[in-house]
Amino acid sequence: MEQTKFLLDESQLPRRWYNIVADMPNPPQSPLHPGTGEPIGPDDLAPLFPMALILQEVSEEAEIAIPDEILDIYSLWRPTPLYRAHRLEQAAGTKSRIFYKYEGVSPPGSHKPNTAVAQAYYNKKEGRTRLSTETGAGQWGSALAFACKLIGLECKVYMVRISYEQKPFRRSMIQLWGAEVVPSPSNDTESGRAILEEFPDTPGSLGMAISEAVEDAAQRDDTSYSLGSVLNHVLLHQTVIGQEAIAQMELAGAFPDVVIGCVGGGSNFAGLAFPFIREKIAGREIDVLACEPAACPTLTRGLFAYDFGDTSKLTPLVAMHTLGHDFVPAPIHAGGLRYHGVAPLISQLVQDGLIRAEAYVQSEVFAAAMLFANSEGIIPAPESSHAIHGALKAAREADEAGEQRTILFNLSGHGHFDMTAYDNYFAGKLEDVALDEEEMQRALRAIEGLPTPA
Amino acid sequence: MEQTKFLLDESQLPRRWYNIVADMPNPPQSPLHPGTGEPIGPDDLAPLFPMALILQEVSEEAEIAIPDEILDIYSLWRPTPLYRAHRLEQAAGTKSRIFYKYEGVSPPGSHKPNTAVAQAYYNKKEGRTRLSTETGAGQWGSALAFACKLIGLECKVYMVRISYEQKPFRRSMIQLWGAEVVPSPSNDTESGRAILEEFPDTPGSLGMAISEAVEDAAQRDDTSYSLGSVLNHVLLHQTVIGQEAIAQMELAGAFPDVVIGCVGGGSNFAGLAFPFIREKIAGREIDVLACEPAACPTLTRGLFAYDFGDTSKLTPLVAMHTLGHDFVPAPIHAGGLRYHGVAPLISQLVQDGLIRAEAYVQSEVFAAAMLFANSEGIIPAPESSHAIHGALKAAREADEAGEQRTILFNLSGHGHFDMTAYDNYFAGKLEDVALDEEEMQRALRAIEGLPTPA
Repeated sequence: MEQTKFLLDESQLPRRWYNIVADMPNPPQSPLHPGTGEPIGPDDLAPLFPMALILQEVSEEAEIAIPDEILDIYSLWRPTPLYRAHRLEQAAGTKSRIFYKYEGVSPPGSHKPNTAVAQAYYNKKEGRTRLSTETGAGQWGSALAFACKLIGLECKVYMVRISYEQKPFRRSMIQLWGAEVVPSPSNDTESGRAILEEFPDTPGSLGMAISEAVEDAAQRDDTSYSLGSVLNHVLLHQTVIGQEAIAQMELAGAFPDVVIGCVGGGSNFAGLAFPFIREKIAGREIDVLACEPAACPTLTRGLFAYDFGDTSKLTPLVAMHTLGHDFVPAPIHAGGLRYHGVAPLISQLVQDGLIRAEAYVQSEVFAAAMLFANSEGIIPAPESSHAIHGALKAAREADEAGEQRTILFNLSGHGHFDMTAYDNYFAGKLEDVALDEEEMQRALRAIEGLPTPA
Repeated sequence: MEQTKFLLDESQLPRRWYNIVADMPNPPQSPLHPGTGEPIGPDDLAPLFPMALILQEVSEEAEIAIPDEILDIYSLWRPTPLYRAHRLEQAAGTKSRIFYKYEGVSPPGSHKPNTAVAQAYYNKKEGRTRLSTETGAGQWGSALAFACKLIGLECKVYMVRISYEQKPFRRSMIQLWGAEVVPSPSNDTESGRAILEEFPDTPGSLGMAISEAVEDAAQRDDTSYSLGSVLNHVLLHQTVIGQEAIAQMELAGAFPDVVIGCVGGGSNFAGLAFPFIREKIAGREIDVLACEPAACPTLTRGLFAYDFGDTSKLTPLVAMHTLGHDFVPAPIHAGGLRYHGVAPLISQLVQDGLIRAEAYVQSEVFAAAMLFANSEGIIPAPESSHAIHGALKAAREADEAGEQRTILFNLSGHGHFDMTAYDNYFAGKLEDVALDEEEMQRALRAIEGLPTPA
């Protein structure tokens, strides 16, 4: 019997988060104030975030200690298992070795609580008693609800109305962990009421929900805003994934030639990849591949430009790959990958040639998900299935080149709350949408006149 | 930081199933032929099951080797973790120590694949190419679909019509793993057509679905019937749970005073409890507690009698605690516990005073589930939540007696496909149904005139 799972004991939990800023060949560009266009400092972010997170956001230290209270909660599901995908390799008929890190073992079912717990902890420590956030498909909202319940904070989630109605079980999860969840736009905020007055039947959007959550936090002293991806400190918290994976690959007597993750905002990808990119910067040869949907091809076709993080232009301007802050991606099932931009740290590393990207259509992604579920057993989330497809494609390319590669990907979550997507796949109802060039050029007009990265 | 998870490496997977028949003070009574009332032998079961499983069903050997091919598939999720429930203890304010074994990490989300994989393996080995089974809520049907996919068998699941319609995502899981699933009663069998002709609008029942699955298997040479609980060989396969738990409790430097599981047919309970009852028979003091719903109080109020396993009187007569084969339990949310009988092995051990039983109503069970989800994080299945409530009650009783006990329970599955039940709990819509005495006496009339256990 060949070994399948490579486990670490909780005594082997990483004790520090890894901050890639310390090692980047070119540091990320400073965020700019949305009004003045001037570089912003920690104080500009103080109304929204606690100072500990702001200092992590701008830190240049390579390692930041993880407080014991956070490790204590991580130990409920971390270290997560790393698998050798023997059965998938066989089903795909590849000579390459495929490994995956499985983040779906957390109670909310994805990597998201790695940062949710950290954010809740620092907010509680600085006296906040309540967090506000937005959620689309519900992965992030449920992770933050879970974290707030365990840390002891109130939580309010503005959930995009169409998801609130179509994904009732993610909503139930949020309620189960004690958070308040309302469909957005709601009557609870000024921005929500204004939108409802103009568009009473709107299905909502992530942009609208962000506006409501930011307004909620800005107007209450007891409340901070919390974001589940994109920002430096969010990516930082996810680096426990890659650090564990390095130790587990050692247990397996292997090191990856290819490291793969799916990218929406970029947090699960960064979590796995950054500790490996540290090795790459130090001289080790690794192919680092970001997988995104063809319906939202931010890294493969978007511009590297200063843009807003939200549609209502409330956030600072950040230098990132973007399709324009007005861009509304087609309603593919990988809801967590439908974001117009990508984390600035990832964007800079793509600019510097340390990460490459590929874009896939839904039918190939779901075919990969089915091959995986029918060999490894686990039902993958549609988002994570982009990484599965990336790994299978990399294995095929290695076979064609007559090479045997070691491939590692991040299985960021399970698909237990995405069965409707599978039903649509079985019924032949999935559309393969690639972003239309004209539509993209139209969307990109939104960033005309904004500052240009150096 | 106190340790939370006690993990075993896959090299520590149990290599043998434990057969409690070898150690029981009184052996279980022989099953009787439904027509003649005479004891049945292996040959009587041959049309339905492969001989390897029949021999396990009647074996008196204490240990039966687990084939490597089964271990190989077990290693996808086994050994499962054992947790010390620090946060639950704190939330409950108890001085007792609470541990739980978590079977929800399997791809189908429960303990069921422990036997599904073994059954699929032996059927394949003896040349069967197809299995038929019934499923109520869908846990068993999805586990068998998963096992058949990995072993390489076709699978047909007769799913109780009301569940097929109300639990579409369990149905999707069954399809995802390649099985055919039809609402029962169906037009695919004679018994199904006969029922539909008389009751075209019937919501279906487990009894009807069993009739269809048994007919399917009896009429096709390529097909065996597969059952997810009750039978001796099914309980046998589950004993990997308790054997792992004993090794993990040793890692924790502890041994349980109380061992707890929920009981429907009895397979997850037996899986955890039997290896501990082996120690109890050898002289160790352990309180072994079976938790059942007050709506279906088989062990606490049923009779120990010979009865049929199904409503259509097709199965052999077995000596067990029963409410009568006609009994239809109230539609509580713990669908997996709605069975009129209990495994004969468990029934005999209750008769012999080695197991005691308690019955709980839904509201207390869901209150326990909420306390668990809000402290340990994991969302428990409604079935498993009976064991959580049992553990909390045992802890409270220990506190009242001024004692500190070590309590271990089986968390047999997660509740990701049971969010409707939680929604009903939040909405105050759960009814606390305890079985009415008159109704029970009416149901028990079904066993009048059947043979009596010695």
